[in-house]
Amino acid sequence: MDEKVMLGHGSGGSMMKRIIDEVFYEAYGNDELLQGNDAAVLPAPKPGERLAFSTDSFVVTPQFFPGGNIGRLAICGTVNDVATSGARPLYLSCGFILEEGYPMADLKRICSTMAETAREAGVRLVTGDTKVVNRGHGDGVFINTAGVGVVPEGVSLGGEQCKPGDKVLVSGTLGDHGITVMSCREGLSFSADLQSDAAPLNHLIAEVLAVAPNTRCFRDPTRGGLASTLNEFADQAQVDITIEEDSVPVKDAVRGACEMLGYDVLQVANEGKMVCVVPADEADAALGAMRANKYGVDAAIIGEVGEMQPERGPKVYLRTAFGGKRILDMLVGEQLPRIC
Amino acid sequence: MDEKVMLGHGSGGSMMKRIIDEVFYEAYGNDELLQGNDAAVLPAPKPGERLAFSTDSFVVTPQFFPGGNIGRLAICGTVNDVATSGARPLYLSCGFILEEGYPMADLKRICSTMAETAREAGVRLVTGDTKVVNRGHGDGVFINTAGVGVVPEGVSLGGEQCKPGDKVLVSGTLGDHGITVMSCREGLSFSADLQSDAAPLNHLIAEVLAVAPNTRCFRDPTRGGLASTLNEFADQAQVDITIEEDSVPVKDAVRGACEMLGYDVLQVANEGKMVCVVPADEADAALGAMRANKYGVDAAIIGEVGEMQPERGPKVYLRTAFGGKRILDMLVGEQLPRIC
Repeated sequence: MDEKVMLGHGSGGSMMKRIIDEVFYEAYGNDELLQGNDAAVLPAPKPGERLAFSTDSFVVTPQFFPGGNIGRLAICGTVNDVATSGARPLYLSCGFILEEGYPMADLKRICSTMAETAREAGVRLVTGDTKVVNRGHGDGVFINTAGVGVVPEGVSLGGEQCKPGDKVLVSGTLGDHGITVMSCREGLSFSADLQSDAAPLNHLIAEVLAVAPNTRCFRDPTRGGLASTLNEFADQAQVDITIEEDSVPVKDAVRGACEMLGYDVLQVANEGKMVCVVPADEADAALGAMRANKYGVDAAIIGEVGEMQPERGPKVYLRTAFGGKRILDMLVGEQLPRIC
Repeated sequence: MDEKVMLGHGSGGSMMKRIIDEVFYEAYGNDELLQGNDAAVLPAPKPGERLAFSTDSFVVTPQFFPGGNIGRLAICGTVNDVATSGARPLYLSCGFILEEGYPMADLKRICSTMAETAREAGVRLVTGDTKVVNRGHGDGVFINTAGVGVVPEGVSLGGEQCKPGDKVLVSGTLGDHGITVMSCREGLSFSADLQSDAAPLNHLIAEVLAVAPNTRCFRDPTRGGLASTLNEFADQAQVDITIEEDSVPVKDAVRGACEMLGYDVLQVANEGKMVCVVPADEADAALGAMRANKYGVDAAIIGEVGEMQPERGPKVYLRTAFGGKRILDMLVGEQLPRIC
């Protein structure tokens, strides 16, 4: 086996065939992928069902960090995006952009993690592509995944469906992923047990929908954190949203790191959390379903949807621990680049 | 409008919202994309139909070249991969990995070309993602597209279906794309009219299937060129394939450039050609359909499938203009990196 990625591994020739056989098929070969044609052919959904389709690219640095690596992110990110529509994610594509000289052993570790995470989520990598760029023109490994899922009949979720009176839930502690990757990158060490929360949440979502069928929407607060997600919802539905600061679950280590570094934890990325808006009478059921899932034990009801004040437009408010109330804005620029 | 791509454009915050609104929605906004949720929800195929799913990343350098740019490649590459299954390509995802400092005007040109090419192919960009990497850790712009299509009932194509006696067709001249990009990159000028052949071939494929319903397979000879495509077919179907060198259409300017630079045109990438294997009794009909399409005017029957000699395994042979016969191998490494 070659020890480093070389330009020839992206050639379309026999070196490429070798990396496909020895790395990708070895890690996650399956019937569809092994067909070896340019497109995977897959069974269609049943009548009444619809398709969900989403994509994400991953450029996180470093590629390995406590709690996961870029491969786990690449599976979870797209699985979660597809699942937010209420769909069962089924199939993923995977495009690698590798830099010449990247250690093949690291690529194998990433692929092995992808296979394991895909198994956990119940999805299959059915089609892929690999490009290699010259040394100095990439950054080790970038991964794109796209995902296809099936939306059951009657399920229709979206940020535009939030209504005044609805409750806002989050499935667990905020900021773990962003602070872990940043600490790892900067050589800071806040706490031994700080680790990325990257996780596939499709099962958690299905469990919530089973007991809270009128759920309005899910969204994973990744880049831009909870603040961006809530502002997107408010904007889509033309409503206000008010969050209780005290109710937002945050690990002590993450809170401490944010205070020290001047980050607002509500704007820090997560990769294994869901924000969910449900009618008030289904909130307790949704919370119970989240807490029963291993990725939702710290779930909480954190706020509610209100009427928008027409003269101000849609706003997100944070009621602080001291009883004050301030506008929670979307992040403008970038505080933690390349976190996913 | 910002003049350069900045890290904040990949933040998930309001700068990201701005690039999405002003660049991506402006170029190719449509109902599905404008839903603004994390996954696009799409109608499912009809009963009996199946899904086709494929992906490709594009890292070509330079990003603009005679006959197209990376945006045209990004649409055509995935449209063509999906179409090789016999599917109607319908929906594309698009993931950008931008380098900090990339000119926003160039990104807009690329997106405008993508919109135009998608319209030509009859597909829609329904979901996307944008990441920005620090200066020096990317190369301007990389694009991944994934595509979903619908395979009509009864259509089942694949390299494994080639049978002895079948004819091999190619839809036009070989090597145009690879030689154009290479010339452009190296500042060589072989001919004023040398240009990339990048084109969406889904309509051409549908027209061939309408008159040659027993077509075995299509594949676009991109990286690795015709030689790799034919070796893949031979390997999948465990057959021999013999090509007549004289029958392979090549533009004079491309042939001249290949001779001067020592490239084998049969291993040079195309981005707007299809190789197609059909039963002998449908070959003329398939050829006629190709030639009637504007992207197939130079189509030709270039060879045929034969029995594999068990002691040698599947081989591709080239019968030369002088009557000799030699093995046509798959490219081993890389002769023209970053051509797509």
